[in-house]
Amino acid sequence: MLNPLFYPKSIAVIGATEKEGKEGNIIMKNLLNLGYSGEVYPVNPKYESVYSIKCRKIEELNVDLAIIVTPPETVVEIVKRLKNRAKYVIIITAGFSEGSEEGKKREDELKKIIKERGIRILGPNTVGILNTENSLATTFAELNELKKGNISFISQSGVVLGVILLRCISCGYGISKVASLGNKIDLDEVDFLNYFFEDEKTDVIGMYLEGIKGRKMFEFLRKEGLKKPIVILKGGMTEAGKKAAVSHTSSLAGNYKVFEGFAKQMNLIKVETLQELLDTVKTISFLGIPKGKNLGIVHYTGAGCVLSSDFATRYGFNLPELSTETKERIRRITPEWHKIRNPIDIWPAFEKHREKAYETVYEALNEDKNIEIIITAFPAMKGFKTPELKGDKPTLVCVEGNTEIREKIRKELEEKSIPCFVSEKECIETLHRINCTGK
Amino acid sequence: MLNPLFYPKSIAVIGATEKEGKEGNIIMKNLLNLGYSGEVYPVNPKYESVYSIKCRKIEELNVDLAIIVTPPETVVEIVKRLKNRAKYVIIITAGFSEGSEEGKKREDELKKIIKERGIRILGPNTVGILNTENSLATTFAELNELKKGNISFISQSGVVLGVILLRCISCGYGISKVASLGNKIDLDEVDFLNYFFEDEKTDVIGMYLEGIKGRKMFEFLRKEGLKKPIVILKGGMTEAGKKAAVSHTSSLAGNYKVFEGFAKQMNLIKVETLQELLDTVKTISFLGIPKGKNLGIVHYTGAGCVLSSDFATRYGFNLPELSTETKERIRRITPEWHKIRNPIDIWPAFEKHREKAYETVYEALNEDKNIEIIITAFPAMKGFKTPELKGDKPTLVCVEGNTEIREKIRKELEEKSIPCFVSEKECIETLHRINCTGK
Repeated sequence: MLNPLFYPKSIAVIGATEKEGKEGNIIMKNLLNLGYSGEVYPVNPKYESVYSIKCRKIEELNVDLAIIVTPPETVVEIVKRLKNRAKYVIIITAGFSEGSEEGKKREDELKKIIKERGIRILGPNTVGILNTENSLATTFAELNELKKGNISFISQSGVVLGVILLRCISCGYGISKVASLGNKIDLDEVDFLNYFFEDEKTDVIGMYLEGIKGRKMFEFLRKEGLKKPIVILKGGMTEAGKKAAVSHTSSLAGNYKVFEGFAKQMNLIKVETLQELLDTVKTISFLGIPKGKNLGIVHYTGAGCVLSSDFATRYGFNLPELSTETKERIRRITPEWHKIRNPIDIWPAFEKHREKAYETVYEALNEDKNIEIIITAFPAMKGFKTPELKGDKPTLVCVEGNTEIREKIRKELEEKSIPCFVSEKECIETLHRINCTGK
Repeated sequence: MLNPLFYPKSIAVIGATEKEGKEGNIIMKNLLNLGYSGEVYPVNPKYESVYSIKCRKIEELNVDLAIIVTPPETVVEIVKRLKNRAKYVIIITAGFSEGSEEGKKREDELKKIIKERGIRILGPNTVGILNTENSLATTFAELNELKKGNISFISQSGVVLGVILLRCISCGYGISKVASLGNKIDLDEVDFLNYFFEDEKTDVIGMYLEGIKGRKMFEFLRKEGLKKPIVILKGGMTEAGKKAAVSHTSSLAGNYKVFEGFAKQMNLIKVETLQELLDTVKTISFLGIPKGKNLGIVHYTGAGCVLSSDFATRYGFNLPELSTETKERIRRITPEWHKIRNPIDIWPAFEKHREKAYETVYEALNEDKNIEIIITAFPAMKGFKTPELKGDKPTLVCVEGNTEIREKIRKELEEKSIPCFVSEKECIETLHRINCTGK
């Protein structure tokens, strides 16, 4: 249903210009330079052409998508004239209900038009959308660095989305589609959820919301079911947070207890920070929803074994006894005196055999019927060569130690779809969050 | 009291050798090459000399410190012969109570000697000590990269200590002294606490323990008071964790509830991960114990303002109204429509004035009587120049976005003793942990 928005054959940019720094310039350049292959029509009565493309009049248009960046006082008139000329309209322009009384009036007029004319609007006050498949970005500048992937995001805040995408770029996480909701006078989180549920390229959905159209979302999810995992970061949990939310997106954050109940009932995965949002989304992106409560844990310190036992138990996981076969395989590479148990303290074997110790232990765990999910910790120290983890069980890795080496190991592993964490706590908390949804 | 251990004028290495890879070789090389300027005497009946230093007989020694790395079956006899010849003995050798029944017997014999002869022992099964002031390291290899500073560590596990130090090296945190306890048949956490309390170079003490000599520590702290902040990571909180602790350091982890009550009563700062240990210790190292509950928060996204309001309130902090003066100063650099409140959404001002916006807002907050502690978030994005934060109020910074840029900004700030965090959550949690101790 949102296909013309995410896969438009033709786009009009209303307010297109060659003036550097202007929104209408950034958008034109992105549409022309990032690889989008549909038609692009600049609209601006001031110019004959923009970047050698002839400017059109609104009355000449027949496009899938129109993007408006003109001043707020011109927007209502333009949307009226776009009747039957654009299927979707993205209003980038700010200065509506979030700004002033006058802006609120303009927004009310827009709402009337939507009802009367059947045109669909994203925004106003949005940074628009992004689709890596057809290299479409309505504002973001760094799309060329984004990796294609199976994660889609919905965010109320454009800047938050920017930060999320920066992290995805620097970490190399694969993105499918992104939507910034802005003032959501028409298209909202439910419309995008609905679309991403059906979208073949999306496997997991990350959301940042302040206000939620609770009843609409509740009814939608009850009817449709949770077709794909949704990871949600909700702002405005406390009174102070709610006040900040009002002044940010005019959102009524609502009662957090109600949201919590709702999230639980609907199996949404709740997170509390952007870092947790990214950690959780990346893990699902790599592993799907790992099933099972039986962990096999490997650590290079006895203390790590102690601490990860604590976390695992606290979050309801089991540390089953290792099979005789597993113990025998590990026995061959570890000193006589070493007591082999789960969690496995790999240091004695590692001192003798380095990465081979990790590989042997990992392969043994991978074939151990008592174990469903493997967590292994690597020391980020000079000379440590990332072991090859050959197997098919869901695997999560913690890398501690030197920051630069850690980052290098993280990249190596995540290129192979093995999610990495800075500590057992983050790792086991993330797994718990995902695992509990059971979807 | 432990001065001859941390500042020995002379050291004997019993088991010294030139054979690469042997413990007795690493220790000799570290003592000779890292900058330690006292006397070093190799002891090994097999050699005339080690690295051109004449080998001594035990009976010729009169040293502050003897380090033993010989096989376990030789240790008891050597310690006996060290009577009146060494004030302190570090037994690096493993293979005592943590290993076998025979090892346990040896350990019992050592305990008898301590009682009879008044010699003081660290270990066995320890990686010993480290002191950056006199460049003394009894095993660690990377001392030359360690920065001198005001943090001292006590750890039951040598490997954990290694990981902590690797992180300190890669992050540039300044270390004073370090002690690895091993099987602690004589010197224990209380001896080192006592020493670090008096040590002028130590401002904050980080600890990793599995078992605690609870009664001894309790009585010591009740008598002495908490002279310096102690940050403690305790393993063995759950049944599974306890089992792992037994097989790691033969520690009886005890009841975690009892420990929690004890920590609370004694104002110890409890943490749950190595990351939290380091975050907390570095913050105290930089800021001491920041007083007050009134936060001024600056963020570059409205969403960040919402989420940090949530965290601040949840952890019992206040977000006081900004003074008229502060609002006026910010008004000069931010657009008319922008609502100025605490947390301050700096984006509108930042878009116009970049780093100057941060500097102006920071200086205003620094002079605002309603504000006691400042938290400010920076976007780790291309072209972001770290603002200069001129002021005297305790300040914590969150840096989000691109990983490499984040690391660069973190280094710049932490060189100026401003602690950095990956998100508002870690930042506010850490501040809460420290702030609550009230010491």
